[in-house]
Amino acid sequence: MSLSTAVVKDAAQSVLSRKILIIDCADAQGLIAKITGVCFAHHLNIIKNTEFVDHAHGRFFMRTELEGTINEVAFLAELKSVLPTQNHTKLVDAGKKRVVIMVTKEAHCLGDLLMKSYYGGLNVEIAAVVGNYDVLQNLTEKFDIPFHYVSHEGLNREEHEQAMLNVITPYQPHYVVLAKFMRVLTPNFVQQFPDQIINIHHSFLPAFIGASPYKQAWERGVKIIGATAHFVNNCLDEGPIIKQDVISVDHSYSAEELAHQGRDVEKSVLSKALQLVLNEQVVVYGNKTVVF
Amino acid sequence: MSLSTAVVKDAAQSVLSRKILIIDCADAQGLIAKITGVCFAHHLNIIKNTEFVDHAHGRFFMRTELEGTINEVAFLAELKSVLPTQNHTKLVDAGKKRVVIMVTKEAHCLGDLLMKSYYGGLNVEIAAVVGNYDVLQNLTEKFDIPFHYVSHEGLNREEHEQAMLNVITPYQPHYVVLAKFMRVLTPNFVQQFPDQIINIHHSFLPAFIGASPYKQAWERGVKIIGATAHFVNNCLDEGPIIKQDVISVDHSYSAEELAHQGRDVEKSVLSKALQLVLNEQVVVYGNKTVVF
Amino acid sequence: MSLSTAVVKDAAQSVLSRKILIIDCADAQGLIAKITGVCFAHHLNIIKNTEFVDHAHGRFFMRTELEGTINEVAFLAELKSVLPTQNHTKLVDAGKKRVVIMVTKEAHCLGDLLMKSYYGGLNVEIAAVVGNYDVLQNLTEKFDIPFHYVSHEGLNREEHEQAMLNVITPYQPHYVVLAKFMRVLTPNFVQQFPDQIINIHHSFLPAFIGASPYKQAWERGVKIIGATAHFVNNCLDEGPIIKQDVISVDHSYSAEELAHQGRDVEKSVLSKALQLVLNEQVVVYGNKTVVF
Amino acid sequence: MSLSTAVVKDAAQSVLSRKILIIDCADAQGLIAKITGVCFAHHLNIIKNTEFVDHAHGRFFMRTELEGTINEVAFLAELKSVLPTQNHTKLVDAGKKRVVIMVTKEAHCLGDLLMKSYYGGLNVEIAAVVGNYDVLQNLTEKFDIPFHYVSHEGLNREEHEQAMLNVITPYQPHYVVLAKFMRVLTPNFVQQFPDQIINIHHSFLPAFIGASPYKQAWERGVKIIGATAHFVNNCLDEGPIIKQDVISVDHSYSAEELAHQGRDVEKSVLSKALQLVLNEQVVVYGNKTVVF
Repeated sequence: MSLSTAVVKDAAQSVLSRKILIIDCADAQGLIAKITGVCFAHHLNIIKNTEFVDHAHGRFFMRTELEGTINEVAFLAELKSVLPTQNHTKLVDAGKKRVVIMVTKEAHCLGDLLMKSYYGGLNVEIAAVVGNYDVLQNLTEKFDIPFHYVSHEGLNREEHEQAMLNVITPYQPHYVVLAKFMRVLTPNFVQQFPDQIINIHHSFLPAFIGASPYKQAWERGVKIIGATAHFVNNCLDEGPIIKQDVISVDHSYSAEELAHQGRDVEKSVLSKALQLVLNEQVVVYGNKTVVF
Repeated sequence: MSLSTAVVKDAAQSVLSRKILIIDCADAQGLIAKITGVCFAHHLNIIKNTEFVDHAHGRFFMRTELEGTINEVAFLAELKSVLPTQNHTKLVDAGKKRVVIMVTKEAHCLGDLLMKSYYGGLNVEIAAVVGNYDVLQNLTEKFDIPFHYVSHEGLNREEHEQAMLNVITPYQPHYVVLAKFMRVLTPNFVQQFPDQIINIHHSFLPAFIGASPYKQAWERGVKIIGATAHFVNNCLDEGPIIKQDVISVDHSYSAEELAHQGRDVEKSVLSKALQLVLNEQVVVYGNKTVVF
Repeated sequence: MSLSTAVVKDAAQSVLSRKILIIDCADAQGLIAKITGVCFAHHLNIIKNTEFVDHAHGRFFMRTELEGTINEVAFLAELKSVLPTQNHTKLVDAGKKRVVIMVTKEAHCLGDLLMKSYYGGLNVEIAAVVGNYDVLQNLTEKFDIPFHYVSHEGLNREEHEQAMLNVITPYQPHYVVLAKFMRVLTPNFVQQFPDQIINIHHSFLPAFIGASPYKQAWERGVKIIGATAHFVNNCLDEGPIIKQDVISVDHSYSAEELAHQGRDVEKSVLSKALQLVLNEQVVVYGNKTVVF
Repeated sequence: MSLSTAVVKDAAQSVLSRKILIIDCADAQGLIAKITGVCFAHHLNIIKNTEFVDHAHGRFFMRTELEGTINEVAFLAELKSVLPTQNHTKLVDAGKKRVVIMVTKEAHCLGDLLMKSYYGGLNVEIAAVVGNYDVLQNLTEKFDIPFHYVSHEGLNREEHEQAMLNVITPYQPHYVVLAKFMRVLTPNFVQQFPDQIINIHHSFLPAFIGASPYKQAWERGVKIIGATAHFVNNCLDEGPIIKQDVISVDHSYSAEELAHQGRDVEKSVLSKALQLVLNEQVVVYGNKTVVF
């Protein structure tokens, strides 16, 4: 066997520690049997399997963790042959993903991601941090991660976003995380990373959309505040929700104390949402998510 | 001493098992010392005491549970003499309060209140239930509580509210509880019971104001749903919030299942809010509450 | 075709609105493909499907909701042919189940089950209530459910349990619910209903096993109390846990107030656990449960 | 006026931004009036005030935040004159406190405290970190905080504790925080810091006392796991509880995944408990705490 043949074969037949198969298609009878039948025929071990049928829309979702030696081209071709014509099928490595984090001035969300990444609490490679202020440069560099200061001063919105894209794109991130990045992104920027930008909003959406949610919450006298992690689409605070959580508060909290207490739930929700996304547990469907 | 003198004295000097003093006034130095000083001078035992100062508005709130033999007239007069001129001072019995419950068709909130009242889980006297449908008459009467069926059929809003008032007023309720009463009340009705009407709204306000909150929640794809108990004022779903709680949900819930699951949190929040109100732990202040 | 043949065929081929298939066996490659393949071959629609593999013990669990016309005998025979020899396979109706509730004196858990059953919050038929006191007879009968007063006075434990069995057995309950039944049951009684008796324990097990958990909790100064619903086996408070929940408390609660507050979480946990069991979502495995 | 007189006067009459008064004594009528009367007489402004009476033991607790210019000697003397003879009275600065953190190998609790201290999420001065391994030296030093590696290798327990004391004592910490320090401390060590050592235990005490709580929890099949922050006294895992919290888990978690998930609740509980202690909101009373 010549070397070139061997190389071609290697490219097609990779050994996998673990892969994740995500399928999203119109519902039909026998789908699970057909899909798992293909897995079985390829001698793949199903480590974990979850399905969901949205009966209201007749839509089928499936997430399968597979182990075994896989011929990806043949496997995917055979899968396609048993699925409805219109389907989204994705086979991804279960391993570590690469993210770029965008920040403004607040340290709590970035700090939590840096720390969790440091001690292995989050299976992620933080490739870089980009800030429109340099306040968090020192913190980022403690962890030997490059910080890019891209000020918006003297630039219009398009120029500033282009400057940030110039910095981010070379890292080829799987995901972009807005860890309290306080500027609204234009559709042009968002389209570069479809369903790949995760934002933390400091309220329990859809309550208190927009600016100063803690001040709004204080004025309304709510007894619970929350945070929402969501994918970013073209409407502010309206993308598909990934994770939400809340804490109880009472009349004795000032707006500042609400904001202070809210930081813990913000960082916790962002970190959990990112974990779900990194594990390939989140499927975007319309303006919602299926979280396996 | 003549008998008539003794009688007069008895009327002024009642033995109390327990009374609750609520004070709300402009903040000033020495208020706690002065107020508790008056209590001490009257040989009253302070069982429990809580204060709150809203430093943003310079407002002082205090709730004190007192035990002892009290001359109410003299006690309140002496209190007034140490308080700022503009003050709200209330001295109420700690005992059981009387409520009228208004309902439409759903049983879960009414059922919980009836059951808790039956076994002593809620220190309340349910004087009557008023329904604009008769669906819940049978359930109410199981507990030997009068049910008044006041249909809105063939009546305009004013006539219907007047018909309900005619039924409710004779009971002289301390509070009116809207246990899934599904009609909007006019200012005229609400003014009869200022800060005395408690409503349960089936969402985590201010999210999903108005009709069909579970459908709205399902369409938005939220990961948490909630319920809000609040006093009713003239704006729909905008009165002072007493209590809120939430439960986690996911993509697999249909709008109907959200509503079904939401019933447990609705009934629990209403029951807890009512407990706080019955215990005189809730002070309304502007559009907010202080919950001691 | 003779009549007798037709009858046999009808017995074997029932129309089902919905059935639930539960499988528990040694793990093996291809199980999902094989099982769902059999479902597909029988033209059954999979409404919902969940699997779990306990990798530590190499055990496979699956719960599938099926819709369609089913020949049960043939379907189960074919399933058995693709499963490992040692397997537990159960095909049950998704419909309403029948329970008998055992009580002593406290009303909150029984009351919640009666009320939820009344308004359709729990898909259950409460066939009867059995009490070793008659305190709850009046409450039970409000809901037109038979109450059997089986006093333990003057009887030894075996005699008392036999008297209760005499009352319970004719109802052929799917499950027996101990809604604050305050006597320990002997192995003889428990064996009559293997994995069918559900108990609510008023603590967050395994903390505060045994008597007076709220008093124990108060003495220990805990900041959270809880409740645990579990299947009953031969060891007190040690059966497989189905559901647990907690509430926050603080230093200001007396032991009595802990017990009072705990009632809400007890009734809520019991009701949720029972719902899971009635939905056939709970599989007992050793001293644990898989809750789908 | 001579300089020396002025100096003496300054020492006695310091300007305070804010002080916290903690009183713990036998209950008696008029205590609040008398204490707040002394505050008023000294022209001190009460910013926040909380009392608690343990009626079971006839014990009175009070925490008062004071603002104003204070003559501490005279103020405390006057307070003592109105209090029962047996009383604990403490007047402390509301400002930043100094702690030493003890660790072994796990980074999550230490990391959270370092990060929160860095961005101002916790009002604390971390004077130093002491580890019996050097695993966390690098992380500590990123934040310019001294790390002392005091290995237990080759030392008996007394020698090791003495070596750690030699390092800790010079910092004169207000509190010592055991952030996953995995060795049991002897009474001799503990007595050096009475009610000053805060530990995080990785279970919902009193469940799963001792080693490997997550393994114990997995074997028992619990549906909720938790963490407990408590003061350390002479019995392992038995000191006064400050804070507890829990998270829901299910059958699909291995013991390792329970431990992994538990880290978030451990770090959160420790951080919240420390916040309460730093704010002087925690009063130890017997084996319990009053948390204001």
